[in-house]
Amino acid sequence: MTSAAPLLVDIDKRGVATLTLNRPDAFNAMSEDLLDALTAAITALNQNDALRVVVIQANGKAFCAGHDLKEMRAQPSDAYYAALFARCSQVMMGLQALPVPVIAKVHGLATAAGCQLVAQCDLAVASTSAQFAVSGVNLGLFCATPSVALTRNLGRKAAFEMLATGAFISAEEAVTKGLVNRAVEPEALDEATGALVQQIIQKPRVALQMGKALFYRQLEKTMGEAYSDAATTMACNMMDDSALEGVQAFIDKRPPKW
Amino acid sequence: MTSAAPLLVDIDKRGVATLTLNRPDAFNAMSEDLLDALTAAITALNQNDALRVVVIQANGKAFCAGHDLKEMRAQPSDAYYAALFARCSQVMMGLQALPVPVIAKVHGLATAAGCQLVAQCDLAVASTSAQFAVSGVNLGLFCATPSVALTRNLGRKAAFEMLATGAFISAEEAVTKGLVNRAVEPEALDEATGALVQQIIQKPRVALQMGKALFYRQLEKTMGEAYSDAATTMACNMMDDSALEGVQAFIDKRPPKW
Amino acid sequence: MTSAAPLLVDIDKRGVATLTLNRPDAFNAMSEDLLDALTAAITALNQNDALRVVVIQANGKAFCAGHDLKEMRAQPSDAYYAALFARCSQVMMGLQALPVPVIAKVHGLATAAGCQLVAQCDLAVASTSAQFAVSGVNLGLFCATPSVALTRNLGRKAAFEMLATGAFISAEEAVTKGLVNRAVEPEALDEATGALVQQIIQKPRVALQMGKALFYRQLEKTMGEAYSDAATTMACNMMDDSALEGVQAFIDKRPPKW
Repeated sequence: MTSAAPLLVDIDKRGVATLTLNRPDAFNAMSEDLLDALTAAITALNQNDALRVVVIQANGKAFCAGHDLKEMRAQPSDAYYAALFARCSQVMMGLQALPVPVIAKVHGLATAAGCQLVAQCDLAVASTSAQFAVSGVNLGLFCATPSVALTRNLGRKAAFEMLATGAFISAEEAVTKGLVNRAVEPEALDEATGALVQQIIQKPRVALQMGKALFYRQLEKTMGEAYSDAATTMACNMMDDSALEGVQAFIDKRPPKW
Repeated sequence: MTSAAPLLVDIDKRGVATLTLNRPDAFNAMSEDLLDALTAAITALNQNDALRVVVIQANGKAFCAGHDLKEMRAQPSDAYYAALFARCSQVMMGLQALPVPVIAKVHGLATAAGCQLVAQCDLAVASTSAQFAVSGVNLGLFCATPSVALTRNLGRKAAFEMLATGAFISAEEAVTKGLVNRAVEPEALDEATGALVQQIIQKPRVALQMGKALFYRQLEKTMGEAYSDAATTMACNMMDDSALEGVQAFIDKRPPKW
Repeated sequence: MTSAAPLLVDIDKRGVATLTLNRPDAFNAMSEDLLDALTAAITALNQNDALRVVVIQANGKAFCAGHDLKEMRAQPSDAYYAALFARCSQVMMGLQALPVPVIAKVHGLATAAGCQLVAQCDLAVASTSAQFAVSGVNLGLFCATPSVALTRNLGRKAAFEMLATGAFISAEEAVTKGLVNRAVEPEALDEATGALVQQIIQKPRVALQMGKALFYRQLEKTMGEAYSDAATTMACNMMDDSALEGVQAFIDKRPPKW
């Protein structure tokens, strides 16, 4: 890929994939090209057995300003918009369906679908310079698809306020409200994200894979159904060699041989 | 309506409806008369195409002390109580079904169904003098219907504590726990509420109408179903003239002509 | 029961049951014996009409370190693990099904199923010395069943972080995130828990019984269904003598005769 590609994909030796939104002049707006690139990246990552964690970051001043409005406005048809928002939703759900944790690393403005992207990731680390809004309503377009991810992170009153006013919240407010896990000084963003990555890649992949899938699956069930699913999942996880070894190593007071 | 009416309804030129609970001597307890008046007001507001936002406030020292206990106690029959609580629930759900945002403006005690009213509104601004409790349990009557709205605002542990102890929380705690959006000094309550109103009425009504309905609808769906609904809703919203103009104006770097 | 029993059960004259996890040398790990004892205690408590509240506490340095790993590791079969986690889940759901509030009183480490136990209780008071983690992932075993209770207390981002990193949070963080109701200095833990118990036992049991069951039932319903259930429940509660007397006493400005 050249630097003109809308998405840069890097996977290091540890299995840490870094997806870099790379339309800095357009505030990384989610053009069709970028959505295509994200779809392709997600497909490829799903087939990569060495993958351990995904970090989503962005080049330029903004993290992501949402959909590409020029592109959108140029095709005023219900069918086009329905397909576009469905496609974007597929990308979002694709991140959740990935077998490894996905971390948003946010350093600037994250608005509309850009804010949704942060909400949809499993984890998020923000620079204190980051700001978040679901600002479509300012243009007369309520952030409907972003609301799906947002309301599954924030309380109702806080989510409704963001959606109805389009107003920005700071990174610190995003922590308080539940949109991101932590906010750090801009110069500490790499280190804080790296530390979270490091914590995650020390665990066996299979445990995180089974666990992440169960995490989201059980949230949509009654408690009884959720426990039933979780008990089966956990038994299956425990029978994996890595868990049998991990538990034995704990008993033996030695590091696991993974 | 005279000043003796249990509910005062005012709609200004901007389409801002102010509903004022007006039983100050009874701490604005929700008598049958007041429930009737709220039902009638909601019906009328639903037919008002110029409506932009609803503010619910109260006259007197308290915001609302819940059901009218004297009236309730006078008719000890299961059928009466079942009908009364169902009717109150209809009012609460009616507020959620209104096509515009509903803001609670809370200046004093909000207890039992009064606290429920705050929880049920889309947004809430409180004076630091406000206090909140679901205090029915103190009389041996667990706040069952209030718990429906309360548990959709607060975390489980915090909600259960309020319901099981009947204890008051302060306005600041109500912010932290998610019951209200913000708490301001008593003398700033008008201004803070007015600022929120002003933010909302600057957006096209149709975006907020589609958005509010979608907001609550998708919360009761799985993520896949929610995204499907949201994508369709957003495409429909985008095809509205106000969104097409809003997006074009943004591209043209000019204010929208709404 | 002797002091060697894995669970000590005490019920005082007020109907306050105290369950004390009593495997201090094993950090109160949930052995099969302890799970059996919890199951038996829950069965007995369900049949005790004088019961008013349950407090779960622990002897020794830790609150509860989760499953007994030695016991678990000794029987590496899918059937055994599935049965074990299902049985533990039954205990957890049994606490929720008890007709009275259940309070976790946490003074030390609460990890894995120990952290789940705190999350599953209706209320929790923690010492500032307490620490919480769902740390199975550190051994390669994702805390799947704990995630069911945890995600019904915390926001998604915070819950996922705990589950994916296995890291500890402090008692203060547990308050902020919604896992416990309050954190107090170690020497104030008895008093703080006692004060909560005292608040609860002053209410009629029937109100709390109907209320607690409704609380969890309605959380798994749509808002319309939830209000319907709540209205019926509240009407039924109001027809109980204790509520009729409680409301009358309030009207008469006198204490209720319960």
